[in-house]
Amino acid sequence: CSSTTPITATLFPGDGIGPEIAESVKKVFTTAGVPIDWEEHFVGTEIDPRTQSFLTWESLESVRRNKVGLKGPMATPIGKGHRSLNLTLRKELNLYANVRPCYSLPGYKTRYDDVNLITIRENTEGEYSGLEHQVVRGVVESLKIITRQASLRVAEYAFHYAKTHGRERVSAIHKANIMQKTDGLFLKCCREVAEKYPEITYEEVVIDNCCMMLVKNPALFDVLVMPNLYGDIISDLCAGLVGGLGLTPSCNIGEDGVALAEAVHGSAPDIAGKNLANPTALLLSGVMMLRHLKLNEQAEQIHRAIVNTIAEGKYRTADLGGSSTTTDFTKAICDHL
Amino acid sequence: CSSTTPITATLFPGDGIGPEIAESVKKVFTTAGVPIDWEEHFVGTEIDPRTQSFLTWESLESVRRNKVGLKGPMATPIGKGHRSLNLTLRKELNLYANVRPCYSLPGYKTRYDDVNLITIRENTEGEYSGLEHQVVRGVVESLKIITRQASLRVAEYAFHYAKTHGRERVSAIHKANIMQKTDGLFLKCCREVAEKYPEITYEEVVIDNCCMMLVKNPALFDVLVMPNLYGDIISDLCAGLVGGLGLTPSCNIGEDGVALAEAVHGSAPDIAGKNLANPTALLLSGVMMLRHLKLNEQAEQIHRAIVNTIAEGKYRTADLGGSSTTTDFTKAICDHL
Ligand SMILES: CC(C)[C@H](C(=O)O)[C@@H](O)C(=O)O
Ligand SMILES: CC(C)[C@H](C(=O)O)[C@@H](O)C(=O)O
Repeated sequence: CSSTTPITATLFPGDGIGPEIAESVKKVFTTAGVPIDWEEHFVGTEIDPRTQSFLTWESLESVRRNKVGLKGPMATPIGKGHRSLNLTLRKELNLYANVRPCYSLPGYKTRYDDVNLITIRENTEGEYSGLEHQVVRGVVESLKIITRQASLRVAEYAFHYAKTHGRERVSAIHKANIMQKTDGLFLKCCREVAEKYPEITYEEVVIDNCCMMLVKNPALFDVLVMPNLYGDIISDLCAGLVGGLGLTPSCNIGEDGVALAEAVHGSAPDIAGKNLANPTALLLSGVMMLRHLKLNEQAEQIHRAIVNTIAEGKYRTADLGGSSTTTDFTKAICDHL
Repeated sequence: CSSTTPITATLFPGDGIGPEIAESVKKVFTTAGVPIDWEEHFVGTEIDPRTQSFLTWESLESVRRNKVGLKGPMATPIGKGHRSLNLTLRKELNLYANVRPCYSLPGYKTRYDDVNLITIRENTEGEYSGLEHQVVRGVVESLKIITRQASLRVAEYAFHYAKTHGRERVSAIHKANIMQKTDGLFLKCCREVAEKYPEITYEEVVIDNCCMMLVKNPALFDVLVMPNLYGDIISDLCAGLVGGLGLTPSCNIGEDGVALAEAVHGSAPDIAGKNLANPTALLLSGVMMLRHLKLNEQAEQIHRAIVNTIAEGKYRTADLGGSSTTTDFTKAICDHL
């Protein structure tokens, strides 16, 4: 319980189960004595012309100012004329890398018990350019964009991550045998960065083969870095290996030192407000945020409490085969602190 | 052992281990009394200007004439100025659908024992357009093309396949939340076709979620239909669930009734010529070819012999943890016939 001046962090509780799991995080963090003041922002009910989405300008300003935040699930309201909330955040805050550690949780059995990998996804371009076009009726095209700048910065992030986290290998995932120019440029950038990190083993794996290897033997991988769409696919695949998006944290890294940790699962409107949601992904994302803030002691302590509570098995939410409420599960974690 | 006039089929033994596993197929088919005359074609040693690749014009003519063929692995020679052999075949023969059944083999243990699904991949467009472009230095783009014609025909193939093979559900895999125009058109076509098959359940699954569900519980799926790149990724993922590309067959369907069955694994140059290769994928692809030819009795007989040989476990090649040679494994299959 250090008594430093508190750090201000933005909190997006999000929709659906978001507020309940955000409540859980606040409870656990307070119990652990984490020196954080939350600045809460909800998704607006009208389109903010300055963001072209339901995200308010103020909420984006809050992240820009605090440079650190935690985000629950946000369902994009149906309708035309506005942008996806998640994509708006990535674009407006220039969140160029999405980091997802994926490891087997002791005591939570899946078909795999040897998973310990990190996917690092380029988060701003590729098939997510938003550029699409109907050539003639019945013929449409989408543009995939790869730039040297975005590829270098995510590669740099991946190698730096590997080096500072005691990782030994970086695998660049691609389909350059088909997309020689786009994925070829991505690989070229990865190779350039790899040369600056001779202590890290570098390899290139074609995405189809990568997926096959991941389901056969995920222990073959360590850190994976890849363009946007492959990252979207492979990070979910990896989450599946260890139990799903309800158990895996993520953190988005932005250009000016911004870090926005995020639970990437859905907002589960069917169970919203029923005290049934599993807060683990948001809690573990919160732990990533603490590590980013170098609050390593509290991060470790909270991480251990979460893992031990799940391993013990006495308090588990329904998605993990238990019958605990969100509040009981949260209390159990606090008791472990 | 029916005594019909033999059917002529094209055989591409391919490179590396190709000739050895093709030998195995010929042996097993002869032993089973399959009424097929093989017309063998090898990859040329020079670029044929009429195909712009190392594939000879004659070999393509052979498939066009016979309308049926079997293909081993073909490594595309390194160098510029020619097209990938596999892509050339798909393009020149208009092989619009790639069908990959993926099922757990009795007696061959993986982490999954409940896999029984069919991936049907659009095989001609999407990210495989070959259209790429450098905008300025450091900025490149690839075009993904989706057409109504190609989407309808692969959807039609998938639903027809489901109906004629006693399957209950077709899942269209997409990322239309991001690529609304391209993947949106693909889904629109699938929906149109689905309406003609009220007895088949139709659903749409986002690719990232699909991959997560596949590794958590593949029994959730039945027939999957999808654009080219997703098919490339998901069919390999599915193969991984049941043991890898050495065990999974595939068949390419063309517009004019052409069917080219194919082992999709690599040519494994490291073990080529050493009598160590596993012929299972090519054998099972041969079985798909026989089913296409309505030689169902022999297809069934050979299929059973392969499965039983592997299940028995006495003769297995090194990739399956055994120490049998290709010829011994092949002989064991023949003995089961
Ligand atoms: C919701 C969707 C737009 C998003 C994406 O495709 O990036 C999601 O799948 C993710 O991984 O955050
Ligand atoms: C070799 C490669 C071009 C090919 C593809 O990407 O289609 C392969 O992965 C396949 O699935 O047949």
